[in-house]
Amino acid sequence: MLNLDQIDKVIKLSLSEDMPFGDITTENIVSEKSVSKARFIAKASGIVCGMPVVLRTFYLLDTEVSIEVLCPDGTKVNKGDVIATIEGPTVAILEGERTALNLLQRLSGVATATNELVEIIKDTKTSVVDTRKTTPGLRYLEKYAVRVGGGQNHRFSLSDGVLIKDNHIVAAGGIKQAVSMVRGNIPHTIKIEVETESLDMVKEAIEAKADIIMLDNMTNEMMQEAVKFINGRALVEASGDMNKDRILGVAQTGVDIISVGKLTHSVKAMDISLKFYA
Amino acid sequence: MLNLDQIDKVIKLSLSEDMPFGDITTENIVSEKSVSKARFIAKASGIVCGMPVVLRTFYLLDTEVSIEVLCPDGTKVNKGDVIATIEGPTVAILEGERTALNLLQRLSGVATATNELVEIIKDTKTSVVDTRKTTPGLRYLEKYAVRVGGGQNHRFSLSDGVLIKDNHIVAAGGIKQAVSMVRGNIPHTIKIEVETESLDMVKEAIEAKADIIMLDNMTNEMMQEAVKFINGRALVEASGDMNKDRILGVAQTGVDIISVGKLTHSVKAMDISLKFYA
Amino acid sequence: MLNLDQIDKVIKLSLSEDMPFGDITTENIVSEKSVSKARFIAKASGIVCGMPVVLRTFYLLDTEVSIEVLCPDGTKVNKGDVIATIEGPTVAILEGERTALNLLQRLSGVATATNELVEIIKDTKTSVVDTRKTTPGLRYLEKYAVRVGGGQNHRFSLSDGVLIKDNHIVAAGGIKQAVSMVRGNIPHTIKIEVETESLDMVKEAIEAKADIIMLDNMTNEMMQEAVKFINGRALVEASGDMNKDRILGVAQTGVDIISVGKLTHSVKAMDISLKFYA
Amino acid sequence: MLNLDQIDKVIKLSLSEDMPFGDITTENIVSEKSVSKARFIAKASGIVCGMPVVLRTFYLLDTEVSIEVLCPDGTKVNKGDVIATIEGPTVAILEGERTALNLLQRLSGVATATNELVEIIKDTKTSVVDTRKTTPGLRYLEKYAVRVGGGQNHRFSLSDGVLIKDNHIVAAGGIKQAVSMVRGNIPHTIKIEVETESLDMVKEAIEAKADIIMLDNMTNEMMQEAVKFINGRALVEASGDMNKDRILGVAQTGVDIISVGKLTHSVKAMDISLKFYA
Amino acid sequence: MLNLDQIDKVIKLSLSEDMPFGDITTENIVSEKSVSKARFIAKASGIVCGMPVVLRTFYLLDTEVSIEVLCPDGTKVNKGDVIATIEGPTVAILEGERTALNLLQRLSGVATATNELVEIIKDTKTSVVDTRKTTPGLRYLEKYAVRVGGGQNHRFSLSDGVLIKDNHIVAAGGIKQAVSMVRGNIPHTIKIEVETESLDMVKEAIEAKADIIMLDNMTNEMMQEAVKFINGRALVEASGDMNKDRILGVAQTGVDIISVGKLTHSVKAMDISLKFYA
Amino acid sequence: MLNLDQIDKVIKLSLSEDMPFGDITTENIVSEKSVSKARFIAKASGIVCGMPVVLRTFYLLDTEVSIEVLCPDGTKVNKGDVIATIEGPTVAILEGERTALNLLQRLSGVATATNELVEIIKDTKTSVVDTRKTTPGLRYLEKYAVRVGGGQNHRFSLSDGVLIKDNHIVAAGGIKQAVSMVRGNIPHTIKIEVETESLDMVKEAIEAKADIIMLDNMTNEMMQEAVKFINGRALVEASGDMNKDRILGVAQTGVDIISVGKLTHSVKAMDISLKFYA
Repeated sequence: MLNLDQIDKVIKLSLSEDMPFGDITTENIVSEKSVSKARFIAKASGIVCGMPVVLRTFYLLDTEVSIEVLCPDGTKVNKGDVIATIEGPTVAILEGERTALNLLQRLSGVATATNELVEIIKDTKTSVVDTRKTTPGLRYLEKYAVRVGGGQNHRFSLSDGVLIKDNHIVAAGGIKQAVSMVRGNIPHTIKIEVETESLDMVKEAIEAKADIIMLDNMTNEMMQEAVKFINGRALVEASGDMNKDRILGVAQTGVDIISVGKLTHSVKAMDISLKFYA
Repeated sequence: MLNLDQIDKVIKLSLSEDMPFGDITTENIVSEKSVSKARFIAKASGIVCGMPVVLRTFYLLDTEVSIEVLCPDGTKVNKGDVIATIEGPTVAILEGERTALNLLQRLSGVATATNELVEIIKDTKTSVVDTRKTTPGLRYLEKYAVRVGGGQNHRFSLSDGVLIKDNHIVAAGGIKQAVSMVRGNIPHTIKIEVETESLDMVKEAIEAKADIIMLDNMTNEMMQEAVKFINGRALVEASGDMNKDRILGVAQTGVDIISVGKLTHSVKAMDISLKFYA
Repeated sequence: MLNLDQIDKVIKLSLSEDMPFGDITTENIVSEKSVSKARFIAKASGIVCGMPVVLRTFYLLDTEVSIEVLCPDGTKVNKGDVIATIEGPTVAILEGERTALNLLQRLSGVATATNELVEIIKDTKTSVVDTRKTTPGLRYLEKYAVRVGGGQNHRFSLSDGVLIKDNHIVAAGGIKQAVSMVRGNIPHTIKIEVETESLDMVKEAIEAKADIIMLDNMTNEMMQEAVKFINGRALVEASGDMNKDRILGVAQTGVDIISVGKLTHSVKAMDISLKFYA
Repeated sequence: MLNLDQIDKVIKLSLSEDMPFGDITTENIVSEKSVSKARFIAKASGIVCGMPVVLRTFYLLDTEVSIEVLCPDGTKVNKGDVIATIEGPTVAILEGERTALNLLQRLSGVATATNELVEIIKDTKTSVVDTRKTTPGLRYLEKYAVRVGGGQNHRFSLSDGVLIKDNHIVAAGGIKQAVSMVRGNIPHTIKIEVETESLDMVKEAIEAKADIIMLDNMTNEMMQEAVKFINGRALVEASGDMNKDRILGVAQTGVDIISVGKLTHSVKAMDISLKFYA
Repeated sequence: MLNLDQIDKVIKLSLSEDMPFGDITTENIVSEKSVSKARFIAKASGIVCGMPVVLRTFYLLDTEVSIEVLCPDGTKVNKGDVIATIEGPTVAILEGERTALNLLQRLSGVATATNELVEIIKDTKTSVVDTRKTTPGLRYLEKYAVRVGGGQNHRFSLSDGVLIKDNHIVAAGGIKQAVSMVRGNIPHTIKIEVETESLDMVKEAIEAKADIIMLDNMTNEMMQEAVKFINGRALVEASGDMNKDRILGVAQTGVDIISVGKLTHSVKAMDISLKFYA
Repeated sequence: MLNLDQIDKVIKLSLSEDMPFGDITTENIVSEKSVSKARFIAKASGIVCGMPVVLRTFYLLDTEVSIEVLCPDGTKVNKGDVIATIEGPTVAILEGERTALNLLQRLSGVATATNELVEIIKDTKTSVVDTRKTTPGLRYLEKYAVRVGGGQNHRFSLSDGVLIKDNHIVAAGGIKQAVSMVRGNIPHTIKIEVETESLDMVKEAIEAKADIIMLDNMTNEMMQEAVKFINGRALVEASGDMNKDRILGVAQTGVDIISVGKLTHSVKAMDISLKFYA
């Protein structure tokens, strides 16, 4: 379920960017009364994501556009599959086309890339999560796409999760100090995560009663050792240049979570087109 | 030269997305008085793009942050190169880090991808241009990155350029009709472009006195023939799934412009990190 | 066809300016259930412009207001003509009256003034266009009114058209240099216009392959000579204190376009009233 | 003294309307380091109004622009007078020029037109006031210009003044009822004005203890009689198509206030230019 | 009658504060199709105020929520009374609950506190009014609640009423000077109030023709004397730490108005709950 | 440390509410050049909270105002104590006075009320936390005030914490189901809290591995039993009409946290005045 307000803000921004003062081609050629039909067609295989955004884009342009969704978010599609059909005022369809496709293709790209990793480690107990390396302005939607692709989310922002990094530890004078400075000043509903780069740091973090321990840029061997040491006393997250080739090995070290920046920072848009038909 | 207002809107959106109600880790650990130094370091080769955005991000957070830019936008860098140094309040550096890097990496990715294509066809007279397949909210910056990479821009939006497509032609009853419906109703400062899929359409467009003719999804042979027929009477733009492997052949057909969607719809972030040092 | 978003922004600004915290007269006297009928009546002759804005003003206040438009935009009306009838909640009609009339009267004033000039030169091939001397915040609507009055538009803003003026030429070191500095850095969809004050400048501009040449503050004789010299190699625009008395002579010099600042900088509102009836 | 927030909102709206995505001419030609000098010169006589807006426009674009105001708001100038000099980055001067002039010329136009009427009736005790027939979005500034021209202001909006009109009287069932419905429900700091069209209505309004009585579209004789009858028991405002020819006669009937719509609904911009010099 | 725009701004602010990126509990548990019924029940006695806000909150979240208001604004309720019933999508009811209750309870608290004072002095001719000591962002609604409770309003803001205080008097060089500096520069529709602290100041204010005289922090005896001196030549307002114990005595001095800061600066929320039922 | 953006949004909203179109008293009387000095003086004892807001209010109005803070946030003051001194342009001081005091008094009220409860239970291990019953628009600041008073915060909003209530349990078909529906779909950084009304529910919640268990409206005896049963397996929060009289007894049951709605829903402003001096 997506928050309408969040979607609408993105769509309005995009529409006004693409039409700061109207569509001078369409408005001068196409009659307000003209109606058309078209189909959203997958031109590559992947996981569809973003149909609520598509629906809302055209609704905001003209409430008389109607869309039938054949492949709702999460559906695996192949090249040639019809994802949805759209019918309504031609002007609205032409004006919303680019905004709708730009978002649909990007979100489907994120869901597809996530799903690829999720499938690779599906026989382990490990989850794939995103990071804050999202596209400015699109974080809410991209994190949704990660979930649609079978992944889970890391904290949404600096405001709703604690991640104590190197600089924090230095500033505080140690992991224990850092954790305790945070503990009393944040909601009791939020866990505390500590980023570690060595087993010594892992031990300190456990002593400080961190709720989550991030193993940053460690070898699989180090991670295995850390998992063994932690032994369920904290959630364990692996981080650092994760990719298709490496992810299964990392999952097999027994970490609970693997966070992957490229799910959102290097998106390959899924190819989807809007084809008119009579 | 970048428009400050445009930059600031994106940065503020990104900062408030990343810190809707503060940074609960940093604010509870790092003193307001603490200062730090750090370096932006390239972890891959490419074209730097986005330093004005980086400068502005930290300026908006704290005017006491100072940044020395060693590799301004457009510089080719290699892995390990120091792009800039930053010095100032630790809190501001930590709070702005993600927003600055998210934008810098993405824009450098766009500039780098553009430059790759530009280099391939540098011995032809053809230009590489972008499309409207940009990230919602980031069009202004992404189009800037295309220019930094050596490309040129297509129209900014539906409001400032005319592109008569299939549906417009059908609605108007022909290319000639479509062009003349637009001609009298748009500023005389804007050219009219017609999308064509066959030589017959090219001929019609020339008769209609189109200023630019887009050759959409044609073979190189068809494009060569079209260029010959047009013979300087209009600018010629080639379009449709352009990529590294294909672009030189297309340029050699003699088209003036090649538009490439993937410059902006499938960006691979350039890897850049911010490293603190004592 | 007007862009709804553009209209709504102006109307909401106007309504909130006129009612920052309600209408303390009407809200305390008129029942929410009261309904009324009224007529928009022309109290002077002219060209009606702005009815979509009127419709939208009342729609935004109360969707139960219904309006029948008898004289749509572009209609020539005489004193006493009923332009439209309105029926619905009295509160909404009273609260929207001033905003609706302020915009309708101003836009009709622009259309009427434009039409007057257009009529004078209707037997020439010359067009009347507007300038950027519009009312802050109302440019989109005022440019629409110019078209409704039979005129055409100049560039919308500094972002979507190039006009190389004196200062640019000085900064660039000559017309040729200025044109070439711009050519590679703007969308290929946008023409380049050069402002000239002498025949020598006209020649330079032609050599630089300017798409449009503005003849600024020239005598009719100079303009005639310039037109002859240019001979179709560029569009020709005449500019500088144009008015009713002078415009025919200027048009007869053969220029393509005459731009007129006072169409929008010195608007005489067309007198229109809203009269209630039982 | 002008409220900065109010000014800035208008200027930002205007700048972003005039440069939605930069100034593609200037940014590609003029160096960021180039500086220029220019003069604001009156090309017609009138009352200067709007210099704080001019100052703020350039300040918002670039804090390094400096302006020396020679003729502050309220100064009577003649053709050729230098109103102010400006010096600073050429880019900022070129980008702000149109916004600054559009506002300065319009506000000076309002102040000049107001002053013309004020001068005509300067030997009477009557004041000239404005109406709500202002330009959408510019009311605050236009009302300021009226004061600069020597006039006074009517209520700012529907929220801060009561004007009981025909429709209110009908809805309430009489003037007395209307006044009493309002009296208890508005701040005790606000006066109640009643619009009247006959002497009978004037009498009723006096009985209802209205604070201000508007004489709408009455002959001078009727107004004289009304003033005599009212005899200081309420302020008296004359309204309805006031102009230069008529205003002295109306003032001589003894009314306290004359409200004039055309001060703001039909503004003739005062001609002012910005001339660069070496 | 409440201005929709004003209400909606507050509600949207509140909803986005309470759900910056969705409701992660409800969205993951409750189906979009689930519908529920619930009742707003008074858990203490008081005056209901804020039902239009409640209606609008749920309408903005989901137009399918329907609410039946049993006790409209102004109704006195006792513990256990059902104020309204609500029926519709469970998700919307859960997401709007806190925003609706936070506003309803606060406004009912203001109305109840106002009414308590109004009742105490109901046999005098004196009115209870509010001040500018309102909650930032809620002034429009809190002033409405004061009216619902039987009170009246003081000026809405610094823009729509004049209150000459000590500092103004010092700056002007006396009450007479202060009043005359304001008189010519504000709309003639606004009264002038002077704050006084002694009978001498009262006399000066009367001489200056102040419309309203505030007696600030005076004893009842002084106030009585002031009222006698003023004798109807101005409205008289008593101010300074007014409360239940003192208000009747003050009213009996004959002042017209008593302004009470704590109506809005120290609100005790009225206890109201939303109970689901099958 | 407070987030500037959050503070500024509230202050700007408040200033524009209090001065939609200027301060018509001050602007007409006090010279722009006039400067003044004044003191913020406590007129009651309590905990100061909100000085950063005060600083920022005047800074936003005029950067030349300077303030010396004698009692920073968290200081216990008594009647008569000078909290801060302010010096600068009189206009800015007068225009910002009400906004600054409205916020300072309210936040100090929250901090003071919180501190009162914190002091009562200071010899237990229990914390006082707030709820979502905050003033619309002021949640960020009010939660800060709770911390300044010695309390801690509950979740900020529906987006960053999970609280499974009765309706969620019914919708899910049981506590276990509800917890597991949420677990996989929220960031792993967020704890899950379950509201319980009986010991059976407590047991179910423990079985479901809830991180936090809320004991809602239970007797002290029930709470004691629950605490014993939970035995450290989850955090325990007591909730329901907590107040001064009851809170020590509740804390002594051994609960970890007591949440108190009235900290923010029924604030008594702390009396603080701004006194000018020569």
